[in-house]
Amino acid sequence: MLRWLTAGESHGPALVAVLEGLPAGVEVTTADIDAALARRRLGYGRGARMKFEADAVTVVGGLRHGRTLGSPVAIQVGNTEWPKWEQVMSADPVDPAELEGSARNAPLTRPRPGHADLAGMQKYGFDEARPVLERASARETAARVALGAVASAFLRQAYGIRLVSHTVELGTVAVPAGSALPGPDDVDYLDADPLRCFDADTSKLMVAEVDAAHDEGDTLGGVVEVVVAGMPPGVGSYVHGDRKLDARLAGALMGIQAIKGVEVGDGFELARTRGSKAQDEIVPVDGGGVRRTSGHSGGIEGGMSTGETLRVRAAMKPISTIPRALRTVDTATGEVTKAHHQRSDVCAVPAAGVVAEAMVALVVAELALEKFGGDSVTETARNLATYLQNIPPRLAVR
Amino acid sequence: MLRWLTAGESHGPALVAVLEGLPAGVEVTTADIDAALARRRLGYGRGARMKFEADAVTVVGGLRHGRTLGSPVAIQVGNTEWPKWEQVMSADPVDPAELEGSARNAPLTRPRPGHADLAGMQKYGFDEARPVLERASARETAARVALGAVASAFLRQAYGIRLVSHTVELGTVAVPAGSALPGPDDVDYLDADPLRCFDADTSKLMVAEVDAAHDEGDTLGGVVEVVVAGMPPGVGSYVHGDRKLDARLAGALMGIQAIKGVEVGDGFELARTRGSKAQDEIVPVDGGGVRRTSGHSGGIEGGMSTGETLRVRAAMKPISTIPRALRTVDTATGEVTKAHHQRSDVCAVPAAGVVAEAMVALVVAELALEKFGGDSVTETARNLATYLQNIPPRLAVR
Amino acid sequence: MLRWLTAGESHGPALVAVLEGLPAGVEVTTADIDAALARRRLGYGRGARMKFEADAVTVVGGLRHGRTLGSPVAIQVGNTEWPKWEQVMSADPVDPAELEGSARNAPLTRPRPGHADLAGMQKYGFDEARPVLERASARETAARVALGAVASAFLRQAYGIRLVSHTVELGTVAVPAGSALPGPDDVDYLDADPLRCFDADTSKLMVAEVDAAHDEGDTLGGVVEVVVAGMPPGVGSYVHGDRKLDARLAGALMGIQAIKGVEVGDGFELARTRGSKAQDEIVPVDGGGVRRTSGHSGGIEGGMSTGETLRVRAAMKPISTIPRALRTVDTATGEVTKAHHQRSDVCAVPAAGVVAEAMVALVVAELALEKFGGDSVTETARNLATYLQNIPPRLAVR
Amino acid sequence: MLRWLTAGESHGPALVAVLEGLPAGVEVTTADIDAALARRRLGYGRGARMKFEADAVTVVGGLRHGRTLGSPVAIQVGNTEWPKWEQVMSADPVDPAELEGSARNAPLTRPRPGHADLAGMQKYGFDEARPVLERASARETAARVALGAVASAFLRQAYGIRLVSHTVELGTVAVPAGSALPGPDDVDYLDADPLRCFDADTSKLMVAEVDAAHDEGDTLGGVVEVVVAGMPPGVGSYVHGDRKLDARLAGALMGIQAIKGVEVGDGFELARTRGSKAQDEIVPVDGGGVRRTSGHSGGIEGGMSTGETLRVRAAMKPISTIPRALRTVDTATGEVTKAHHQRSDVCAVPAAGVVAEAMVALVVAELALEKFGGDSVTETARNLATYLQNIPPRLAVR
Repeated sequence: MLRWLTAGESHGPALVAVLEGLPAGVEVTTADIDAALARRRLGYGRGARMKFEADAVTVVGGLRHGRTLGSPVAIQVGNTEWPKWEQVMSADPVDPAELEGSARNAPLTRPRPGHADLAGMQKYGFDEARPVLERASARETAARVALGAVASAFLRQAYGIRLVSHTVELGTVAVPAGSALPGPDDVDYLDADPLRCFDADTSKLMVAEVDAAHDEGDTLGGVVEVVVAGMPPGVGSYVHGDRKLDARLAGALMGIQAIKGVEVGDGFELARTRGSKAQDEIVPVDGGGVRRTSGHSGGIEGGMSTGETLRVRAAMKPISTIPRALRTVDTATGEVTKAHHQRSDVCAVPAAGVVAEAMVALVVAELALEKFGGDSVTETARNLATYLQNIPPRLAVR
Repeated sequence: MLRWLTAGESHGPALVAVLEGLPAGVEVTTADIDAALARRRLGYGRGARMKFEADAVTVVGGLRHGRTLGSPVAIQVGNTEWPKWEQVMSADPVDPAELEGSARNAPLTRPRPGHADLAGMQKYGFDEARPVLERASARETAARVALGAVASAFLRQAYGIRLVSHTVELGTVAVPAGSALPGPDDVDYLDADPLRCFDADTSKLMVAEVDAAHDEGDTLGGVVEVVVAGMPPGVGSYVHGDRKLDARLAGALMGIQAIKGVEVGDGFELARTRGSKAQDEIVPVDGGGVRRTSGHSGGIEGGMSTGETLRVRAAMKPISTIPRALRTVDTATGEVTKAHHQRSDVCAVPAAGVVAEAMVALVVAELALEKFGGDSVTETARNLATYLQNIPPRLAVR
Repeated sequence: MLRWLTAGESHGPALVAVLEGLPAGVEVTTADIDAALARRRLGYGRGARMKFEADAVTVVGGLRHGRTLGSPVAIQVGNTEWPKWEQVMSADPVDPAELEGSARNAPLTRPRPGHADLAGMQKYGFDEARPVLERASARETAARVALGAVASAFLRQAYGIRLVSHTVELGTVAVPAGSALPGPDDVDYLDADPLRCFDADTSKLMVAEVDAAHDEGDTLGGVVEVVVAGMPPGVGSYVHGDRKLDARLAGALMGIQAIKGVEVGDGFELARTRGSKAQDEIVPVDGGGVRRTSGHSGGIEGGMSTGETLRVRAAMKPISTIPRALRTVDTATGEVTKAHHQRSDVCAVPAAGVVAEAMVALVVAELALEKFGGDSVTETARNLATYLQNIPPRLAVR
Repeated sequence: MLRWLTAGESHGPALVAVLEGLPAGVEVTTADIDAALARRRLGYGRGARMKFEADAVTVVGGLRHGRTLGSPVAIQVGNTEWPKWEQVMSADPVDPAELEGSARNAPLTRPRPGHADLAGMQKYGFDEARPVLERASARETAARVALGAVASAFLRQAYGIRLVSHTVELGTVAVPAGSALPGPDDVDYLDADPLRCFDADTSKLMVAEVDAAHDEGDTLGGVVEVVVAGMPPGVGSYVHGDRKLDARLAGALMGIQAIKGVEVGDGFELARTRGSKAQDEIVPVDGGGVRRTSGHSGGIEGGMSTGETLRVRAAMKPISTIPRALRTVDTATGEVTKAHHQRSDVCAVPAAGVVAEAMVALVVAELALEKFGGDSVTETARNLATYLQNIPPRLAVR
């Protein structure tokens, strides 16, 4: 049972992330988590905030001398702009006189379409949107990326599982069908690309798309793909709907801010393909073992990893806060007005790939631990090894 | 906390479904569950099995005199063909002599591409696929539909929430953009349509697509949509990733057999749309209250229902068992061979809509109960009513 | 993740129990489950009902040819008296004329002190107690015992873990301090004893205590102990409160009907003992390895099994329905009255031991699977074996 | 769904506690949490450490201007001695030269009987006990108490539920049967008593017991009781074993470090009482409504609160680390040796009451939220009020 919780407001002192249930002996450092957070700030089309936002990582529990202890891993991601917000976001009551006249503290009564603002106010009974947007903000994904860095280290060290993400669509620009799929060795290349796109020509078109949207005062969405190499067969299960690896991945990816669609392998395209073209045939491999002839399934059949490359996609809607503000209702008066406008990113799709990668790492770690058990990296790795040794060689996935 | 488990093998004596946590006082009968199961057997393109398969429903617990008791609801869906399988699927050991020579009991060593067969054998250490396919089979969805019938009755009686599903794509045929959306009053019309398609002209094209695939010995997938009317705002939450209504829906829908993609509202299309066109503006309504000017979001913002019509889609891959059998490996010998072929449906998409509707009903019931609490229909309905009354009239969703 | 749900009313057609998450390959038959249920009907001091109550067991899913499939195990325990209750407990509406004048259907408006009756009516909004007592009844424990039989078979086959339970107190009669502890080989002896007591002299005193209570029209409670042999060290964990083996056992045992206290090892007595006498010292064993010099801790330290014999106790209050009926309020009128009186058992303590054993088996199975993982008995047993091999010989528990 | 996780090591920089699922609008401040933590440091018989241990509380998320936001509440409890441990407990690798010769970093190879040390080393594969005892330490309960302070504020403000705890046994000294039960207004009195005992004479005997144990170089355990006033009827449920309020309380209390027994109401004594004396009769109250004539059940029947005073007890074993060190095995050599000895408290029972109170608050909050739902204090309080109004006046608990 691997569990995680995140906490913290966008302009609060810090985000906090706790990962409970990870085996002991995973090698990971503050620098690894810092590096993961830096990747989340990447991408052409981001506004100024990403530049200030040097995330200040502190590991508060669960790690000693660079190795996990088996106890919950707790990570704090400090907000370097906290001094500016200390009054407005103070946990404790603040002298009203100090808040009066503070622009930062002015009630946010113009809920932004496409955001949690209005439904959040209705649900929790708030009379302004500040308490909603502070938590609903995508800033929270920094906490997930921090946990994902730990989960990725675990997957790599215990099972040899490695992940990579890339941008496959940005607005109306898409990587051509049949383009090469990146592997885990391509992470540096991808992180150096302005859009984290693996196809150089497409990347240029995407840059142009961002520039055009920027010039028009508009925003863009896109589609990211996470690729997982080194999966053993049999992670997840068909025996119950909520044990399926694809079900868990879909839940985790759709739970990322602004994600509106998820697909596994060829996904929606598969629905449009005849059955005779949609399957991955199974063939013997010289020297023993089997492989699939194609990867339409995305490496998941019957809710289980097949042992082939795993591949999932998530569709991100365009940033809801657009420079040309949208119509909304002033919640204090009921009158029509223009929505609050707080930032000026054109697109956050490259970052969404990094967040998606983190969520996939967490889910795969969770289900791999259910299958292999173990309280230390050594023990869980050993359980995987003996499992694989006990699959008849003629059925081993090569 | 609403929980459910299903059990039972495809050719076993019965499926069993248990729903734990439902309030008392929901009016539902065996006939209601029968009717739901009959809807699951609908659809042009199904093979002969659907005709034999009169599901024999027995409610074993949780219901008395047509009302739920608050205790777990247990439903058994008998397998009318059980006598043919009694030896092969016997829970207890059977005299080997009785099994010998039984064609039904012959080991299934030719795992079907696209199914759970091979990965299931690897995972559980089976030397043939029977134990896998018996549980991985879509027959299990009958148990989910039975529970969905109960959840739907609860949603309607407690909250006035009503659901409908329809087929929006079948193979390469899709309902034209801008077609009318069905509402809950259209269920009978849809169930009478051969493909459960709301657009009559498209339905005819879909029939032709099925006929063509059938003639070519091929199979089809498609896309279904579930529409939910009567949602109050604020079901689900932005405060944690796994509390989001869309995350839960995505997990539940992707956990249905053969589903490879899920989207909310305009989904993947939203990723290709500029921000200025992608949002649902919020406007005041004459006489008080607000509404959105469009439904791109599918009625979910920030992981919460907005109070507008909820809309989610699921993509089903074509049936993996195709008449022109695919290449696979004989697991007993390691030699290349042709996969088992067991049934001859061309397409199960109309039924997938009914199953998707059941899963959506279960998820919405789960999260609505988290928000509104209550141990009887009366109590939970009252809690909804006072919640709505306490939203300022100028912010009420009309 | 091992999960279970039970369903069914006391006088309904059947109880249903589902156990989800058990590995494949556990050898178990209907006869094994029958035998477990027969043990639950044992014990001096039970009323006539136990004699009619031949539980009719059917395994509906998860088992084939005497081995679990890895899919959910579903067991139905039929109610042999169902024909008498078919109208009163019908799931579907019944013609009121048929119910009229039925004594069995008369509203139960005199809630029994010590039962769920009154609080259940308040909670669920019922106007009589029938819907409460049907589910709150200890009849439900038959479903748990059925699942416990499966869990016990798993523990024995996968890990060599074996359980036994016995009665240590009955009313004011207690097994003397320092009496021998039974082991798993003593199950038959215990089941043959009228009170399932391991000390022959005490058993006679307990028989006399039952007879005396019976003559006085009164009822008795008692204390049962579950002993688990063969535990490896390290099941459960100290890293989080809800991962502790003792916490899980306490929750599961206190969740049994009529249990009011739980203790591990010497329990409450330990609180009264000086620290210098309360610990189990650790000493080396000739030939390598370690052992504890005593068993005060009950085989659990820091929320983990130590590898020594595990020992937990549960205190059952006397049966609440007593022949000399207690004062209560008529819920229809608000007037004082006498409580309903429905059965005439003096004591159900011996059966409680069997139920406690089942709950302990389920909890130990759940936590052992978290530690060792594995989807088949072979795999999980192998993971245990390599774990034990990797504990340095000088630290192995002998 | 209310969830919580704690993290952090005893000598790490801080403990972290996250509480997810609490409604918005609970009034609570850092000072409230500080006050709760100060109560945990109370009690005659504690060693010097409690004096240094001024817990440095920071609320990192979920609270703004003294009110909860509905988002996860994250609390950090800093370790004021961190500078001394910065090298030894550093999350990141430390230059071995810096650690060399550090007494604090010397491997702990003499596992203490009664602690998690040995089983923890076996489970996680550690070669010394430091990584175990850092997390298994009772220091972690500070995180629970911090969360309990928030849960208590919620219970009081939303439902009028108030808690108190007291010491009922210390070593061999027990509060006499029939002594007065404290109520929530007695918290200050109790906190001022050296042993948190409500009976002044018994308190004096307990002081003497501590002094005697101290003189003899020994340690003491005891029994604490938590009393909850203001419970409405119907929190928890009989419909499933794991929904029972007593089951959840037992699990939570047994999950506290050093707790070996839990009982509800008269608990184990009830098992020794005849049925005719063991029940709480129900009688009408002048002016309408009902009450129980006694409180044997501890305010829980059928796994539900009855609406009467709730009462649960937990037995704490004596502190395992005793001045006269116990025998153990040196894990590096396998030789017999004396256990590590690290602190000199005689007894931590008064503190255990405060911790138990926190766990009870969390569990009651969790189950009350399941029953009453609601996303703000206002909403959940309103749902309780209308629930109570809808219980017929003749059945209301007075």
